[in-house]
Amino acid sequence: MTMPWYEVPPSPPDRGSEEAARDRQARLTKPPGSLGKLEDLAVRFAGFQGRTLPDLERIYVTVFAADHGIAERGVSAFPQSVTAAMLRNFSQGGAAINALARRMGAVLEVVDVGVRADPGALPGVVSARVGPGTAPFDDGWAMTDDQLETALVAGWESVERAREARAGLFIGGEMGIANSNSATALACALSGADPDRLIGPGSGLDGNGLARKSAVVRGALERHGLQKGEPLEALRLVGGFEIAALAGAYVRAAQGGVPSLVDGFIATAAALAAVQLSPGAADWLIFGHRSDEPGHGPLLEALDAEPLLDLGLRLGEGSGAAVAAELIRSALALHREMATFQEAGLDTE
Amino acid sequence: MTMPWYEVPPSPPDRGSEEAARDRQARLTKPPGSLGKLEDLAVRFAGFQGRTLPDLERIYVTVFAADHGIAERGVSAFPQSVTAAMLRNFSQGGAAINALARRMGAVLEVVDVGVRADPGALPGVVSARVGPGTAPFDDGWAMTDDQLETALVAGWESVERAREARAGLFIGGEMGIANSNSATALACALSGADPDRLIGPGSGLDGNGLARKSAVVRGALERHGLQKGEPLEALRLVGGFEIAALAGAYVRAAQGGVPSLVDGFIATAAALAAVQLSPGAADWLIFGHRSDEPGHGPLLEALDAEPLLDLGLRLGEGSGAAVAAELIRSALALHREMATFQEAGLDTE
Repeated sequence: MTMPWYEVPPSPPDRGSEEAARDRQARLTKPPGSLGKLEDLAVRFAGFQGRTLPDLERIYVTVFAADHGIAERGVSAFPQSVTAAMLRNFSQGGAAINALARRMGAVLEVVDVGVRADPGALPGVVSARVGPGTAPFDDGWAMTDDQLETALVAGWESVERAREARAGLFIGGEMGIANSNSATALACALSGADPDRLIGPGSGLDGNGLARKSAVVRGALERHGLQKGEPLEALRLVGGFEIAALAGAYVRAAQGGVPSLVDGFIATAAALAAVQLSPGAADWLIFGHRSDEPGHGPLLEALDAEPLLDLGLRLGEGSGAAVAAELIRSALALHREMATFQEAGLDTE
Repeated sequence: MTMPWYEVPPSPPDRGSEEAARDRQARLTKPPGSLGKLEDLAVRFAGFQGRTLPDLERIYVTVFAADHGIAERGVSAFPQSVTAAMLRNFSQGGAAINALARRMGAVLEVVDVGVRADPGALPGVVSARVGPGTAPFDDGWAMTDDQLETALVAGWESVERAREARAGLFIGGEMGIANSNSATALACALSGADPDRLIGPGSGLDGNGLARKSAVVRGALERHGLQKGEPLEALRLVGGFEIAALAGAYVRAAQGGVPSLVDGFIATAAALAAVQLSPGAADWLIFGHRSDEPGHGPLLEALDAEPLLDLGLRLGEGSGAAVAAELIRSALALHREMATFQEAGLDTE
């Protein structure tokens, strides 16, 4: 058997449990359908967990951090050194995702998949370095075949730790200065969308920066001649280590029966790669929020995905997904704890 | 001094603390503005609490329940007896708002402001009965002047209990079969909107029911000849006891320096009445979710309000606001706990 691990198809969620949960929703003391998307979440989690009354105690958040050679082209509002500085900030507990993970009692893991300079041992940071950042993708491949494989496996390994911790939900986040360039090129390659529909300011590019970003992305797409439906090629040529790790994580989580709550633009580009690698993974994805980054809309369309939140966030780190995770817990509390019409003595009216 | 209590203008939120919080947001380790509406929430709570680092421990939820004479016209998908049955369900802890209040550690109070038949003493239910439901508003006044005053005071009293409990947020909910008829007529009267823009299925009316609802609302508006800017008259002629109580609660909460998180269509109609009674109350309102009820959009426009969530909910009870309250806590955790660029050693880069 020589099938690569990511080609092993995930099992679908348990349709019988979904059906039973949908039936329960119809019997709870409320007008049918009046809890909207919260009803759908409860039904999906029933399918994920194979039981009518799912819960969500343990949430596992992994932030993958890596640098991007393309940053040298002046296509980010922040200097490349910020990636490593943010890695230290994660380690010290001061970033947005730290505050959100504490609030929801989640495990937070940070994985260095290739910040430019090896930061050495940092508390709470797993070293799974693929290399000292990718190569500039407008001038060659972002990474080698081996590097891609290693990055995908870094995602696999993180999910295995999440499964070991018996997580009921996986949230993948990312940090990498200039990675919206990589995500944009990747998204264009995977979806066939024109770069003009996808390019946006990322962490805050001005007009000149946007023009450089557009030229870089457009040039790389022309140079590499990528076709739709080639997720591995696209990841290798224009991807990032943290984006490939996210894609690997989404595939592995689906294989392991763990749903993933997808964050914003970068994470959704990784999710599209994951679904092209492993179509069955789509059943295990939930979309947390609609990013303020303009390219997120077309990407979500390509995935036929409707996020839970739309709050103007555009930070990454898994932050939007982490905020949305509370909605899932509310949905499951409602589903488990509400009385049925019969229990409330309302069924004879 | 003979000014009625609801005409005492609320103090505005503390603009200096808002400014200080906005300044802090700009110094936290993230691209400026990248937390979107969560940044705005933190700034507003700084203003509410008069300090740069607000928190939100105690949340107080009050569900006001009452019956509506208009239910006799066949304008609700459920029989009138369901209001009393749901009052018992709240008392027994089986309704949606019970599950959500437990989840967020909120105090939940249920106030009977006029269910048709007096249910007697029920655990967790405050009796503040204005009468055995309103009169049908297509055939006369919904309530008398005295009843209106009593209903407004029921809201006042609930907020006083919330203040006694040192609540940092007030959520008002409602339960009352047929109350979307009353809320629609009220909203049309207060905003000048045409009923066709506002009438919707409520808890699930079919086509014939919708036609009756439209005729009832239209007929009442013509009969009573209400003008914009007459909130007391509108509440008295077409309102409900629970809707008037909500309006009184929103005004009193603003006077007491407690922000209110407004729920869906019915609660927003009450909020519009509150703001017309006491324009300064608008500064103390946050809008939790966009209801699936079609009339909610125009009502929100009239209030220049943008809700936090849009999840297809249309249940009432304060449920949408309760789900949204978690977002406020996330926003405040981020605001309090994130490191500044200086603290993270990122300010020299």
